[in-house]
Amino acid sequence: MVIDRVKKLFDDCGADALVVREDDLRFYLTGFSSSFGVVVADDEGVSFYTDSRYLEAAEKCLTPLGFKVLEYPRGIKLTSLLSKYKKLAMPLGRITASDYLALTECGYAIVDSLSLFERAMAVKDEGEIKSIKKACVATDRAYEELLGEIKEGMTENEVAALLEYLMRKHGASGTSFSTICAFGANASVPHHETGNIKLKFGDPILLDFGCKVDGYCSDCTRTLLFGDDGRHGEFKDIYAKVLDAHFLVKEKFAAGMSGKQGDAIARDYFAKFGLDKYFTHALGHSLGINIHESPSLSPSCESIFTDGMVFSDEPGLYIAGKLGVRIEDTVTLKEGKVVSLTDSDKNLYII
Amino acid sequence: MVIDRVKKLFDDCGADALVVREDDLRFYLTGFSSSFGVVVADDEGVSFYTDSRYLEAAEKCLTPLGFKVLEYPRGIKLTSLLSKYKKLAMPLGRITASDYLALTECGYAIVDSLSLFERAMAVKDEGEIKSIKKACVATDRAYEELLGEIKEGMTENEVAALLEYLMRKHGASGTSFSTICAFGANASVPHHETGNIKLKFGDPILLDFGCKVDGYCSDCTRTLLFGDDGRHGEFKDIYAKVLDAHFLVKEKFAAGMSGKQGDAIARDYFAKFGLDKYFTHALGHSLGINIHESPSLSPSCESIFTDGMVFSDEPGLYIAGKLGVRIEDTVTLKEGKVVSLTDSDKNLYII
Repeated sequence: MVIDRVKKLFDDCGADALVVREDDLRFYLTGFSSSFGVVVADDEGVSFYTDSRYLEAAEKCLTPLGFKVLEYPRGIKLTSLLSKYKKLAMPLGRITASDYLALTECGYAIVDSLSLFERAMAVKDEGEIKSIKKACVATDRAYEELLGEIKEGMTENEVAALLEYLMRKHGASGTSFSTICAFGANASVPHHETGNIKLKFGDPILLDFGCKVDGYCSDCTRTLLFGDDGRHGEFKDIYAKVLDAHFLVKEKFAAGMSGKQGDAIARDYFAKFGLDKYFTHALGHSLGINIHESPSLSPSCESIFTDGMVFSDEPGLYIAGKLGVRIEDTVTLKEGKVVSLTDSDKNLYII
Repeated sequence: MVIDRVKKLFDDCGADALVVREDDLRFYLTGFSSSFGVVVADDEGVSFYTDSRYLEAAEKCLTPLGFKVLEYPRGIKLTSLLSKYKKLAMPLGRITASDYLALTECGYAIVDSLSLFERAMAVKDEGEIKSIKKACVATDRAYEELLGEIKEGMTENEVAALLEYLMRKHGASGTSFSTICAFGANASVPHHETGNIKLKFGDPILLDFGCKVDGYCSDCTRTLLFGDDGRHGEFKDIYAKVLDAHFLVKEKFAAGMSGKQGDAIARDYFAKFGLDKYFTHALGHSLGINIHESPSLSPSCESIFTDGMVFSDEPGLYIAGKLGVRIEDTVTLKEGKVVSLTDSDKNLYII
């Protein structure tokens, strides 16, 4: 039950009240999606405040779960809800300096709640993994349908827009981030800004895309060839190495290992071929309600991964101005092992 | 020149340095789009710091404009760029409490720069209005093309996704907010969450949509009928009143008037018919790089509107559980008068 999440966080927060206004954190605590609201938990219970737009729906959804639902018209000061308290737990890395100063000037002490949220949100429950899986299925179906629709002369923007449309058609409420589509050498820029260049025969295509279902994200990258002009020897070699690294992570990474150890599986494999200098980003990041969550699979991450964590396995190699290959699935740990949640074919497609 | 914007803001900020990390504010100051970077302006000049991903492009774009472009690897502390200074101007309503505390603990004094940005960004220059106009043209074209594609049985989600695809096809880099599509009585919720109900004969359709071109937003709402089942007498009356209010604002609002006076043009018109209780939001908001900027056209806004401001004219009437009509254009003030930037037909379409 989501209400237990709130109670647990309140018990651990060391303040008179846990106060949560941020959309994603509020959604995590309630499962109720709204663009405005405040959760206030204290030792007497948990209140959900929202304005007239959401009041009826919030009552229907949250009252049976044990929340006290109350109206809180927009424009009313937050302090009017907090007069009983002296010490508040709020996410200091998310509230603004203005809000912090306004509250402290009113005499409140504020302790940070962000790391509690990060730790709690890292491990997904069954319902959350089901939602992420739904987003992953929409992602896979959209990609498979896209393959038959890509034509010479389409722009990066058009391909990205079509893929986003197909994800929606397969049940997504929207994207989890702005789709990256890179043709040819543009793929060598890991965060290429999708533009208006046109697809031509022989171009590699890198697609990094994901969507949201039930408020949860998916993340997937595929690299493919739009026709083989016979000049893709190096590309195919690099592709094979990235695919090996991707699968090696799935095989070797396990519950109990750190993010750093996960990253090293891919990085050490590339190093054997002197390719690690082209692996210019981390192996992966956690995802859930947000597309980037903690912990990450990066050279500096000491956090231990456990069952129920959901993250990306996305090794990539980028040779500046020449080529780029990234292959990414959203995965989770189950009974200690990596299980793939996105799962469309990763063999090199030549369409 | 964008560099003059930075210099003007620095001159007005009352600190040793103006420090800007926020994507939208940084884009306003540079015209250069990136997901990571810092602008630091002091009495010696203006520096743009970014990481290796953007360095080459930033040098090409910003050095000729008078910026000093420097590498700033991610993960390095902001304070390493700021050792010369004691007093920083930063947007307190945008930086996090964590960042604020980290800087003040290092001994920096911080003054707020946000209102300076809000005031500066409110008045668009010719280039900015050109970009907004491009976004508005893509919005209009997409809407016109969509009209021929709407079919019985499509879901709200599918219609929204198709409209977003068409905006991209007409040159947008993405949406300026998540498209709202509401069928039937769903339109009575001003911020309806687009879902999976299916379109049927006789349904009203409310579409609120916008896109980005060159980093600038458009915003547009149209309400139409999917076939006339002969039971739309009240809907048509309400539609006519909203359209009258929309045009009345275009006719009467002018440079020199306050946001409050603008809002009152529509509100007072509705009040003549006892309909003002159904006008449950403000008449409009400014837009530009962000979809919601200051000032607004609302009952509490005393700010005076001037030439070059860009805002929405979006009166609406919502009868809960029954019907909703909103008609919105993005407009600007030119030579004192309202000029429409989105401009697709606003007469009631029955498709």
